[in-house]
Amino acid sequence: MIPIIRPIEIRGRRLGSGAGPLICTPVVGRTREAVLGELATVLAKRPDLVEWRVDFFEGIADTGAVTELAAEMRRRAGDTPILFTRRSDREGGEAVPLSEEEVVALYEAVCGSGSIDIVDYETGNPAERVRRVREASRAHGVAMIQSYHNFAVTSTREEMMERLAAAERQGADIAKLTVMPTKLEDVLELLAVTAEAAKALSIPVMTMSMGGYGSLTRMFGWVFGSAITFAVGDRSSAPGQVPIDDLRTVVAITRKALPGDKSG
Amino acid sequence: MIPIIRPIEIRGRRLGSGAGPLICTPVVGRTREAVLGELATVLAKRPDLVEWRVDFFEGIADTGAVTELAAEMRRRAGDTPILFTRRSDREGGEAVPLSEEEVVALYEAVCGSGSIDIVDYETGNPAERVRRVREASRAHGVAMIQSYHNFAVTSTREEMMERLAAAERQGADIAKLTVMPTKLEDVLELLAVTAEAAKALSIPVMTMSMGGYGSLTRMFGWVFGSAITFAVGDRSSAPGQVPIDDLRTVVAITRKALPGDKSG
Repeated sequence: MIPIIRPIEIRGRRLGSGAGPLICTPVVGRTREAVLGELATVLAKRPDLVEWRVDFFEGIADTGAVTELAAEMRRRAGDTPILFTRRSDREGGEAVPLSEEEVVALYEAVCGSGSIDIVDYETGNPAERVRRVREASRAHGVAMIQSYHNFAVTSTREEMMERLAAAERQGADIAKLTVMPTKLEDVLELLAVTAEAAKALSIPVMTMSMGGYGSLTRMFGWVFGSAITFAVGDRSSAPGQVPIDDLRTVVAITRKALPGDKSG
Repeated sequence: MIPIIRPIEIRGRRLGSGAGPLICTPVVGRTREAVLGELATVLAKRPDLVEWRVDFFEGIADTGAVTELAAEMRRRAGDTPILFTRRSDREGGEAVPLSEEEVVALYEAVCGSGSIDIVDYETGNPAERVRRVREASRAHGVAMIQSYHNFAVTSTREEMMERLAAAERQGADIAKLTVMPTKLEDVLELLAVTAEAAKALSIPVMTMSMGGYGSLTRMFGWVFGSAITFAVGDRSSAPGQVPIDDLRTVVAITRKALPGDKSG
Protein backbone atom coordinates (compact mmCIF):
# COMPACT_ATOMS: atom_id res chain seq x y z
CA MET A 1 0.00 0.00 0.00
CA ILE A 2 3.02 2.34 -0.12
CA PRO A 3 2.14 5.23 -2.43
CA ILE A 4 3.81 5.12 -5.80
CA ILE A 5 5.16 8.52 -6.67
CA ARG A 6 7.58 8.06 -9.50
CA PRO A 7 10.61 10.35 -9.23
CA ILE A 8 10.97 13.34 -11.50
CA GLU A 9 14.39 14.22 -12.88
CA ILE A 10 15.15 17.58 -14.37
CA ARG A 11 18.48 17.93 -16.20
CA GLY A 12 19.78 14.89 -14.35
CA ARG A 13 18.75 16.18 -10.94
CA ARG A 14 16.06 14.38 -8.99
CA LEU A 15 13.49 16.74 -7.53
CA GLY A 16 12.03 16.39 -4.07
CA SER A 17 12.39 13.62 -1.52
CA GLY A 18 9.69 11.35 -2.95
CA ALA A 19 7.93 11.53 0.41
CA GLY A 20 5.33 14.02 -0.76
CA PRO A 21 4.24 15.79 -3.92
CA LEU A 22 6.33 18.33 -5.75
CA ILE A 23 4.63 21.69 -5.39
CA CYS A 24 4.41 23.93 -8.44
CA THR A 25 3.28 27.55 -8.24
CA PRO A 26 1.96 29.30 -11.34
CA VAL A 27 2.95 32.75 -12.60
CA VAL A 28 0.22 34.39 -14.65
CA GLY A 29 1.31 38.00 -15.16
CA ARG A 30 0.26 39.85 -18.31
CA THR A 31 3.32 42.10 -18.46
CA ARG A 32 7.06 41.57 -18.01
CA GLU A 33 6.89 43.55 -14.78
CA ALA A 34 3.94 41.54 -13.46
CA VAL A 35 5.60 38.23 -14.34
CA LEU A 36 8.82 39.18 -12.55
CA GLY A 37 6.89 40.55 -9.58
CA GLU A 38 4.91 37.33 -9.20
CA LEU A 39 8.07 35.31 -9.67
CA ALA A 40 9.70 37.09 -6.73
CA THR A 41 6.62 36.48 -4.58
CA VAL A 42 6.37 32.79 -5.38
CA LEU A 43 10.11 32.11 -5.10
CA ALA A 44 10.01 33.45 -1.55
CA LYS A 45 7.69 30.55 -0.77
CA ARG A 46 10.20 27.98 -2.05
CA PRO A 47 8.08 25.90 -4.45
CA ASP A 48 9.67 22.86 -6.07
CA LEU A 49 8.77 24.22 -9.50
CA VAL A 50 7.52 27.48 -11.01
CA GLU A 51 5.15 27.37 -13.96
CA TRP A 52 5.13 30.28 -16.37
CA ARG A 53 1.70 30.34 -17.98
CA VAL A 54 2.80 32.17 -21.09
CA ASP A 55 -0.74 32.33 -22.50
CA PHE A 56 -1.36 35.12 -19.98
CA PHE A 57 1.66 37.10 -21.24
CA GLU A 58 0.69 39.92 -23.57
CA GLY A 59 4.06 39.68 -25.36
CA ILE A 60 3.51 36.05 -26.40
CA ALA A 61 3.53 36.90 -30.13
CA ASP A 62 7.06 38.35 -29.83
CA THR A 63 9.39 35.36 -29.58
CA GLY A 64 12.31 37.59 -28.63
CA ALA A 65 10.32 39.09 -25.75
CA VAL A 66 9.37 35.61 -24.55
CA THR A 67 12.90 34.20 -24.63
CA GLU A 68 14.34 37.36 -23.06
CA LEU A 69 11.83 37.15 -20.21
CA ALA A 70 12.46 33.40 -19.82
CA ALA A 71 16.19 34.14 -19.52
CA GLU A 72 15.52 36.79 -16.88
CA MET A 73 13.28 34.38 -14.96
CA ARG A 74 16.03 31.77 -15.18
CA ARG A 75 18.56 34.20 -13.68
CA ARG A 76 16.22 35.05 -10.82
CA ALA A 77 14.92 31.52 -10.14
CA GLY A 78 18.29 30.06 -9.19
CA ASP A 79 17.97 26.28 -8.81
CA THR A 80 14.17 26.24 -9.07
CA PRO A 81 13.11 24.54 -12.30
CA ILE A 82 10.83 26.52 -14.60
CA LEU A 83 7.90 24.90 -16.39
CA PHE A 84 6.83 26.66 -19.60
CA THR A 85 3.16 26.26 -20.47
CA ARG A 86 0.92 27.65 -23.16
CA ARG A 87 -2.49 26.42 -22.03
CA SER A 88 -4.87 26.49 -25.01
CA ASP A 89 -8.21 28.24 -24.71
CA ARG A 90 -9.84 24.88 -25.57
CA GLU A 91 -8.42 23.52 -22.32
CA GLY A 92 -8.98 26.44 -20.01
CA GLY A 93 -6.20 28.83 -21.01
CA GLU A 94 -6.22 32.35 -22.42
CA ALA A 95 -6.83 33.06 -26.10
CA VAL A 96 -3.56 34.06 -27.79
CA PRO A 97 -2.87 35.79 -31.15
CA LEU A 98 -0.82 32.85 -32.49
CA SER A 99 -1.62 30.01 -34.84
CA GLU A 100 -0.88 26.55 -33.44
CA GLU A 101 2.02 26.41 -35.90
CA GLU A 102 3.43 29.58 -34.33
CA VAL A 103 2.91 28.11 -30.87
CA VAL A 104 5.03 25.09 -31.82
CA ALA A 105 7.72 27.41 -33.17
CA LEU A 106 7.63 29.31 -29.87
CA TYR A 107 8.09 26.06 -27.92
CA GLU A 108 11.03 25.19 -30.20
CA ALA A 109 12.64 28.58 -29.57
CA VAL A 110 12.11 28.37 -25.82
CA CYS A 111 13.48 24.82 -25.65
CA GLY A 112 16.57 26.04 -27.49
CA SER A 113 17.03 29.01 -25.16
CA GLY A 114 18.37 26.96 -22.26
CA SER A 115 16.24 29.03 -19.88
CA ILE A 116 13.49 26.59 -19.08
CA ASP A 117 13.51 23.04 -17.76
CA ILE A 118 10.11 21.56 -18.59
CA VAL A 119 7.41 22.23 -21.14
CA ASP A 120 3.73 21.31 -20.99
CA TYR A 121 2.04 20.63 -24.32
CA GLU A 122 -1.45 19.20 -24.71
CA THR A 123 -1.98 15.66 -26.00
CA GLY A 124 -5.08 16.92 -27.80
CA ASN A 125 -2.87 18.59 -30.41
CA PRO A 126 -2.18 16.83 -33.72
CA ALA A 127 0.40 14.07 -33.28
CA GLU A 128 2.84 15.76 -35.65
CA ARG A 129 2.96 18.88 -33.48
CA VAL A 130 3.32 16.87 -30.28
CA ARG A 131 6.20 15.05 -31.97
CA ARG A 132 7.92 18.31 -32.90
CA VAL A 133 7.69 19.70 -29.37
CA ARG A 134 8.94 16.36 -28.07
CA GLU A 135 11.93 16.45 -30.43
CA ALA A 136 12.82 20.05 -29.60
CA SER A 137 12.57 19.43 -25.87
CA ARG A 138 14.58 16.21 -26.01
CA ALA A 139 17.29 17.83 -28.14
CA HIS A 140 17.84 20.46 -25.46
CA GLY A 141 17.48 18.35 -22.32
CA VAL A 142 14.06 19.80 -21.53
CA ALA A 143 11.49 17.50 -19.89
CA MET A 144 8.00 17.27 -21.38
CA ILE A 145 4.61 17.07 -19.71
CA GLN A 146 1.81 15.99 -22.02
CA SER A 147 -1.49 17.14 -20.62
CA TYR A 148 -5.24 16.84 -20.92
CA HIS A 149 -7.74 19.17 -19.26
CA ASN A 150 -11.51 18.95 -19.13
CA PHE A 151 -13.10 22.03 -17.56
CA ALA A 152 -16.64 20.66 -17.98
CA VAL A 153 -16.80 17.16 -16.54
CA THR A 154 -14.93 14.19 -15.11
CA SER A 155 -14.61 11.63 -17.88
CA THR A 156 -15.12 7.90 -17.37
CA ARG A 157 -12.30 5.96 -15.72
CA GLU A 158 -11.51 4.33 -19.06
CA GLU A 159 -11.22 7.65 -20.85
CA MET A 160 -9.09 9.19 -18.12
CA MET A 161 -6.73 6.19 -18.18
CA GLU A 162 -6.53 6.45 -21.97
CA ARG A 163 -5.61 10.15 -21.79
CA LEU A 164 -2.72 9.35 -19.47
CA ALA A 165 -1.64 6.31 -21.49
CA ALA A 166 -1.69 8.40 -24.68
CA ALA A 167 0.83 10.78 -23.14
CA GLU A 168 3.11 7.86 -22.33
CA ARG A 169 2.78 6.42 -25.86
CA GLN A 170 3.66 9.78 -27.39
CA GLY A 171 6.89 9.92 -25.43
CA ALA A 172 5.97 12.23 -22.52
CA ASP A 173 8.20 12.34 -19.47
CA ILE A 174 5.17 13.14 -17.29
CA ALA A 175 1.46 12.55 -18.01
CA LYS A 176 -0.98 15.17 -16.70
CA LEU A 177 -4.76 14.87 -16.28
CA THR A 178 -7.03 17.67 -15.02
CA VAL A 179 -10.80 17.28 -14.83
CA MET A 180 -13.83 19.05 -13.36
CA PRO A 181 -16.05 17.23 -10.88
CA THR A 182 -19.79 17.66 -11.29
CA LYS A 183 -20.51 15.58 -8.21
CA LEU A 184 -18.57 14.71 -5.10
CA GLU A 185 -18.02 11.11 -6.20
CA ASP A 186 -16.11 12.37 -9.27
CA VAL A 187 -13.29 13.33 -6.93
CA LEU A 188 -13.03 9.68 -5.85
CA GLU A 189 -13.05 8.53 -9.48
CA LEU A 190 -10.09 10.79 -10.26
CA LEU A 191 -8.18 9.44 -7.27
CA ALA A 192 -8.94 5.84 -8.28
CA VAL A 193 -7.63 6.51 -11.80
CA THR A 194 -4.54 8.10 -10.30
CA ALA A 195 -3.74 4.99 -8.24
CA GLU A 196 -4.34 2.78 -11.27
CA ALA A 197 -2.22 4.90 -13.61
CA ALA A 198 0.59 5.29 -11.09
CA LYS A 199 0.92 1.50 -11.12
CA ALA A 200 0.26 0.90 -14.81
CA LEU A 201 2.35 3.62 -16.43
CA SER A 202 6.14 3.74 -16.57
CA ILE A 203 6.24 7.55 -16.27
CA PRO A 204 5.15 9.83 -13.42
CA VAL A 205 1.57 11.01 -13.48
CA MET A 206 0.11 14.23 -12.15
CA THR A 207 -3.64 14.49 -11.75
CA MET A 208 -6.11 16.88 -10.27
CA SER A 209 -9.79 17.50 -9.94
CA MET A 210 -10.71 21.19 -10.04
CA GLY A 211 -13.05 23.42 -8.05
CA GLY A 212 -13.82 23.38 -4.35
CA TYR A 213 -14.21 19.65 -3.85
CA GLY A 214 -11.38 19.03 -6.27
CA SER A 215 -9.12 20.85 -3.83
CA LEU A 216 -9.04 17.56 -1.91
CA THR A 217 -7.12 16.02 -4.80
CA ARG A 218 -4.62 18.88 -4.79
CA MET A 219 -3.93 18.15 -1.12
CA PHE A 220 -4.07 14.30 -1.14
CA GLY A 221 -3.64 13.16 -4.72
CA TRP A 222 0.02 12.44 -3.95
CA VAL A 223 -1.05 9.66 -1.58
CA PHE A 224 -2.58 7.97 -4.63
CA GLY A 225 0.51 8.56 -6.77
CA SER A 226 0.21 12.07 -8.24
CA ALA A 227 3.74 13.46 -8.48
CA ILE A 228 3.13 17.20 -8.83
CA THR A 229 0.44 19.47 -7.41
CA PHE A 230 -0.26 23.14 -8.05
CA ALA A 231 -0.60 25.61 -5.21
CA VAL A 232 -1.08 29.33 -5.03
CA GLY A 233 2.10 31.28 -4.39
CA ASP A 234 0.77 34.63 -5.54
CA ARG A 235 -2.16 34.22 -7.95
CA SER A 236 -4.22 31.14 -8.80
CA SER A 237 -4.22 29.70 -12.33
CA ALA A 238 -7.15 27.25 -11.96
CA PRO A 239 -10.14 26.74 -9.67
CA GLY A 240 -9.52 24.96 -6.37
CA GLN A 241 -5.83 25.69 -5.92
CA VAL A 242 -4.96 26.19 -2.25
CA PRO A 243 -2.27 28.45 -0.78
CA ILE A 244 1.17 26.82 -0.77
CA ASP A 245 1.60 27.17 3.01
CA ASP A 246 -1.73 25.43 3.63
CA LEU A 247 -0.83 22.68 1.19
CA ARG A 248 2.51 22.08 2.91
CA THR A 249 0.80 21.91 6.31
CA VAL A 250 -1.69 19.30 5.13
CA VAL A 251 1.02 17.24 3.43
CA ALA A 252 3.13 17.25 6.61
CA ILE A 253 0.22 16.17 8.81
CA THR A 254 -0.84 13.49 6.35
CA ARG A 255 2.72 12.14 6.07
CA LYS A 256 2.88 11.68 9.83
CA ALA A 257 -0.33 9.63 9.70
CA LEU A 258 0.60 7.45 6.72
CA PRO A 259 2.43 4.13 7.01
CA GLY A 260 5.95 3.68 5.72
CA ASP A 261 9.17 5.62 5.73
CA LYS A 262 8.75 9.00 7.40
CA SER A 263 12.39 9.99 7.12
CA GLY A 264 12.34 11.58 3.67
CA MET B 1 -22.41 19.09 -4.15
CA ILE B 2 -22.73 20.65 -0.70
CA PRO B 3 -21.65 18.02 1.84
CA ILE B 4 -24.47 16.46 3.75
CA ILE B 5 -23.62 16.25 7.40
CA ARG B 6 -26.82 15.60 9.25
CA PRO B 7 -26.97 17.43 12.59
CA ILE B 8 -26.55 15.58 15.85
CA GLU B 9 -28.70 16.52 18.82
CA ILE B 10 -27.85 15.49 22.33
CA ARG B 11 -30.52 16.08 24.99
CA GLY B 12 -32.14 18.68 22.73
CA ARG B 13 -28.91 20.55 22.08
CA ARG B 14 -27.46 20.58 18.60
CA LEU B 15 -23.73 19.85 18.58
CA GLY B 16 -21.24 21.69 16.41
CA SER B 17 -21.78 24.18 13.61
CA GLY B 18 -22.43 21.64 10.85
CA ALA B 19 -19.50 23.14 8.95
CA GLY B 20 -17.11 20.35 9.88
CA PRO B 21 -17.09 17.02 11.68
CA LEU B 22 -17.70 16.62 15.38
CA ILE B 23 -14.46 15.49 16.94
CA CYS B 24 -14.60 12.73 19.55
CA THR B 25 -11.61 11.79 21.70
CA PRO B 26 -11.45 8.37 23.35
CA VAL B 27 -10.59 7.64 26.97
CA VAL B 28 -9.11 4.16 27.43
CA GLY B 29 -7.78 4.06 31.00
CA ARG B 30 -7.75 0.76 32.90
CA THR B 31 -8.19 2.30 36.35
CA ARG B 32 -10.39 5.04 37.81
CA GLU B 33 -7.32 7.22 38.23
CA ALA B 34 -6.16 6.61 34.65
CA VAL B 35 -9.64 7.33 33.24
CA LEU B 36 -9.91 10.62 35.12
CA GLY B 37 -6.34 11.58 34.21
CA GLU B 38 -7.00 10.98 30.51
CA LEU B 39 -10.30 12.81 30.78
CA ALA B 40 -8.53 15.90 32.10
CA THR B 41 -6.00 15.73 29.27
CA VAL B 42 -8.57 15.37 26.52
CA LEU B 43 -10.97 17.98 27.92
CA ALA B 44 -8.16 20.52 27.77
CA LYS B 45 -8.21 19.99 24.00
CA ARG B 46 -11.92 20.85 23.79
CA PRO B 47 -13.31 17.91 21.80
CA ASP B 48 -16.98 17.96 20.79
CA LEU B 49 -17.47 14.59 22.49
CA VAL B 50 -15.57 12.29 24.81
CA GLU B 51 -15.89 8.53 24.41
CA TRP B 52 -15.38 6.34 27.43
CA ARG B 53 -14.27 2.96 26.15
CA VAL B 54 -15.46 1.02 29.17
CA ASP B 55 -14.12 -2.29 27.84
CA PHE B 56 -10.66 -1.04 28.87
CA PHE B 57 -11.84 -0.35 32.45
CA GLU B 58 -10.80 -3.06 34.87
CA GLY B 59 -13.83 -2.32 37.08
CA ILE B 60 -16.33 -3.07 34.28
CA ALA B 61 -17.85 -6.04 36.16
CA ASP B 62 -18.78 -3.79 39.10
CA THR B 63 -21.82 -1.83 37.96
CA GLY B 64 -21.60 0.50 40.97
CA ALA B 65 -17.97 1.32 40.14
CA VAL B 66 -18.93 2.04 36.51
CA THR B 67 -21.86 4.32 37.35
CA GLU B 68 -19.87 6.11 40.08
CA LEU B 69 -17.03 6.78 37.62
CA ALA B 70 -19.49 7.87 34.94
CA ALA B 71 -20.99 10.35 37.42
CA GLU B 72 -17.54 11.69 38.28
CA MET B 73 -16.71 12.04 34.58
CA ARG B 74 -20.01 13.87 34.10
CA ARG B 75 -19.13 16.34 36.87
CA ARG B 76 -15.72 17.01 35.34
CA ALA B 77 -16.80 17.11 31.68
CA GLY B 78 -19.10 20.10 32.06
CA ASP B 79 -21.05 20.60 28.82
CA THR B 80 -19.07 18.06 26.82
CA PRO B 81 -21.27 15.07 25.96
CA ILE B 82 -20.00 11.65 27.01
CA LEU B 83 -20.29 8.62 24.75
CA PHE B 84 -20.34 5.28 26.58
CA THR B 85 -18.97 2.37 24.54
CA ARG B 86 -18.29 -1.25 25.31
CA ARG B 87 -16.49 -2.37 22.14
CA SER B 88 -16.70 -6.17 21.88
CA ASP B 89 -13.57 -8.20 21.33
CA ARG B 90 -15.19 -9.51 18.13
CA GLU B 91 -15.07 -5.95 16.77
CA GLY B 92 -11.68 -4.81 18.02
CA GLY B 93 -12.35 -4.15 21.72
CA GLU B 94 -10.92 -5.63 24.88
CA ALA B 95 -12.13 -8.93 26.30
CA VAL B 96 -14.29 -8.33 29.39
CA PRO B 97 -15.43 -10.68 32.17
CA LEU B 98 -19.13 -10.14 31.42
CA SER B 99 -21.71 -12.16 29.54
CA GLU B 100 -23.52 -10.23 26.79
CA GLU B 101 -26.58 -10.34 29.03
CA GLU B 102 -24.58 -8.59 31.75
CA VAL B 103 -23.33 -6.05 29.23
CA VAL B 104 -26.91 -5.16 28.32
CA ALA B 105 -27.75 -4.77 32.01
CA LEU B 106 -24.72 -2.48 32.38
CA TYR B 107 -25.95 -0.33 29.47
CA GLU B 108 -29.38 -0.18 31.11
CA ALA B 109 -27.85 0.95 34.41
CA VAL B 110 -25.65 3.55 32.76
CA CYS B 111 -28.54 4.91 30.67
CA GLY B 112 -30.53 5.27 33.90
CA SER B 113 -27.71 7.04 35.72
CA GLY B 114 -28.15 10.33 33.89
CA SER B 115 -24.38 10.64 33.58
CA ILE B 116 -23.87 9.82 29.95
CA ASP B 117 -25.37 11.24 26.76
CA ILE B 118 -24.80 8.67 24.04
CA VAL B 119 -24.24 4.92 23.93
CA ASP B 120 -22.63 2.87 21.18
CA TYR B 121 -23.89 -0.70 20.82
CA GLU B 122 -23.01 -3.01 17.95
CA THR B 123 -25.59 -3.96 15.33
CA GLY B 124 -24.01 -7.42 15.22
CA ASN B 125 -25.65 -8.27 18.56
CA PRO B 126 -28.93 -10.20 18.63
CA ALA B 127 -31.87 -7.96 17.72
CA GLU B 128 -33.48 -8.49 21.12
CA ARG B 129 -30.46 -7.04 22.91
CA VAL B 130 -30.17 -4.13 20.50
CA ARG B 131 -33.86 -3.46 21.19
CA ARG B 132 -33.33 -3.45 24.95
CA VAL B 133 -30.42 -1.01 24.77
CA ARG B 134 -32.50 1.15 22.43
CA GLU B 135 -35.41 1.15 24.88
CA ALA B 136 -33.25 1.96 27.88
CA SER B 137 -31.46 4.77 26.07
CA ARG B 138 -34.68 6.26 24.68
CA ALA B 139 -36.36 6.10 28.09
CA HIS B 140 -33.60 8.25 29.58
CA GLY B 141 -32.99 10.69 26.71
CA VAL B 142 -29.73 9.02 25.75
CA ALA B 143 -28.81 8.94 22.04
CA MET B 144 -27.78 5.65 20.47
CA ILE B 145 -25.07 4.86 17.95
CA GLN B 146 -25.38 1.44 16.35
CA SER B 147 -22.04 0.36 15.00
CA TYR B 148 -20.26 -2.17 12.84
CA HIS B 149 -16.48 -2.69 12.77
CA ASN B 150 -14.41 -4.89 10.53
CA PHE B 151 -10.74 -5.00 11.56
CA ALA B 152 -9.80 -7.38 8.72
CA VAL B 153 -11.09 -5.98 5.45
CA THR B 154 -13.22 -3.39 3.69
CA SER B 155 -16.50 -5.07 2.77
CA THR B 156 -18.25 -4.58 -0.57
CA ARG B 157 -20.17 -1.36 -1.10
CA GLU B 158 -23.42 -3.28 -0.85
CA GLU B 159 -22.51 -4.84 2.48
CA MET B 160 -21.28 -1.55 3.94
CA MET B 161 -24.52 0.17 2.89
CA GLU B 162 -26.51 -2.66 4.41
CA ARG B 163 -24.66 -2.36 7.74
CA LEU B 164 -25.54 1.33 7.92
CA ALA B 165 -29.13 0.75 6.79
CA ALA B 166 -29.55 -1.98 9.42
CA ALA B 167 -28.67 0.53 12.14
CA GLU B 168 -31.33 2.90 10.83
CA ARG B 169 -33.95 0.11 10.65
CA GLN B 170 -33.20 -0.89 14.24
CA GLY B 171 -33.87 2.63 15.45
CA ALA B 172 -30.36 4.05 15.82
CA ASP B 173 -29.90 7.79 16.11
CA ILE B 174 -26.49 7.51 14.42
CA ALA B 175 -25.15 4.72 12.18
CA LYS B 176 -21.43 3.92 12.49
CA LEU B 177 -19.24 1.94 10.09
CA THR B 178 -15.53 1.21 10.62
CA VAL B 179 -13.53 -0.94 8.22
CA MET B 180 -9.91 -1.88 7.49
CA PRO B 181 -8.43 -1.11 4.08
CA THR B 182 -6.24 -3.81 2.52
CA LYS B 183 -5.45 -1.63 -0.47
CA LEU B 184 -5.42 2.08 -1.10
CA GLU B 185 -8.56 1.96 -3.26
CA ASP B 186 -10.52 0.62 -0.26
CA VAL B 187 -10.27 4.08 1.26
CA LEU B 188 -12.10 5.48 -1.78
CA GLU B 189 -14.76 2.78 -1.52
CA LEU B 190 -15.47 3.75 2.09
CA LEU B 191 -15.77 7.41 1.12
CA ALA B 192 -18.11 6.54 -1.77
CA VAL B 193 -20.34 4.54 0.58
CA THR B 194 -20.31 7.46 3.00
CA ALA B 195 -21.57 9.88 0.36
CA GLU B 196 -24.25 7.41 -0.71
CA ALA B 197 -25.41 6.66 2.85
CA ALA B 198 -25.40 10.33 3.85
CA LYS B 199 -27.94 10.92 1.09
CA ALA B 200 -29.95 7.69 1.44
CA LEU B 201 -30.34 7.46 5.22
CA SER B 202 -32.47 9.69 7.39
CA ILE B 203 -30.03 9.57 10.33
CA PRO B 204 -26.44 10.86 10.59
CA VAL B 205 -23.70 8.45 9.58
CA MET B 206 -20.17 8.24 10.88
CA THR B 207 -17.66 6.20 8.93
CA MET B 208 -13.97 5.55 8.98
CA SER B 209 -11.32 3.46 7.36
CA MET B 210 -8.55 2.41 9.78
CA GLY B 211 -4.77 2.27 9.60
CA GLY B 212 -2.35 4.67 7.97
CA TYR B 213 -4.17 5.22 4.70
CA GLY B 214 -7.48 5.17 6.51
CA SER B 215 -6.32 8.27 8.37
CA LEU B 216 -7.36 10.16 5.23
CA THR B 217 -10.98 9.27 6.01
CA ARG B 218 -10.61 10.52 9.57
CA MET B 219 -9.48 13.88 8.19
CA PHE B 220 -11.79 14.19 5.14
CA GLY B 221 -14.68 11.80 5.63
CA TRP B 222 -16.79 14.73 6.80
CA VAL B 223 -16.62 16.23 3.30
CA PHE B 224 -18.45 13.09 2.14
CA GLY B 225 -20.98 13.29 4.96
CA SER B 226 -19.44 11.57 8.00
CA ALA B 227 -20.73 13.42 11.06
CA ILE B 228 -18.25 12.37 13.76
CA THR B 229 -14.54 11.56 13.61
CA PHE B 230 -12.22 10.22 16.29
CA ALA B 231 -8.96 11.94 17.12
CA VAL B 232 -6.28 11.39 19.70
CA GLY B 233 -6.54 13.65 22.71
CA ASP B 234 -4.35 11.55 24.98
CA ARG B 235 -4.24 7.91 23.87
CA SER B 236 -5.41 6.30 20.62
CA SER B 237 -8.23 3.73 20.63
CA ALA B 238 -7.87 2.48 17.04
CA PRO B 239 -5.24 2.46 14.29
CA GLY B 240 -4.90 5.59 12.17
CA GLN B 241 -6.32 8.15 14.59
CA VAL B 242 -4.52 11.48 14.26
CA PRO B 243 -3.86 14.05 17.00
CA ILE B 244 -6.81 16.37 17.58
CA ASP B 245 -4.81 19.52 16.87
CA ASP B 246 -3.64 18.14 13.53
CA LEU B 247 -7.18 17.11 12.65
CA ARG B 248 -8.52 20.57 13.43
CA THR B 249 -5.81 22.19 11.30
CA VAL B 250 -6.65 19.99 8.30
CA VAL B 251 -10.39 20.59 8.70
CA ALA B 252 -9.87 24.36 8.84
CA ILE B 253 -7.69 24.39 5.71
CA THR B 254 -10.09 22.12 3.84
CA ARG B 255 -13.09 24.24 4.80
CA LYS B 256 -11.44 27.32 3.33
CA ALA B 257 -10.97 25.43 0.05
CA LEU B 258 -14.46 23.95 -0.19
CA PRO B 259 -17.41 25.66 -1.86
CA GLY B 260 -20.40 26.83 0.11
CA ASP B 261 -21.04 28.66 3.33
CA LYS B 262 -17.81 29.37 5.17
CA SER B 263 -19.41 31.27 8.01
CA GLY B 264 -20.19 28.40 10.38
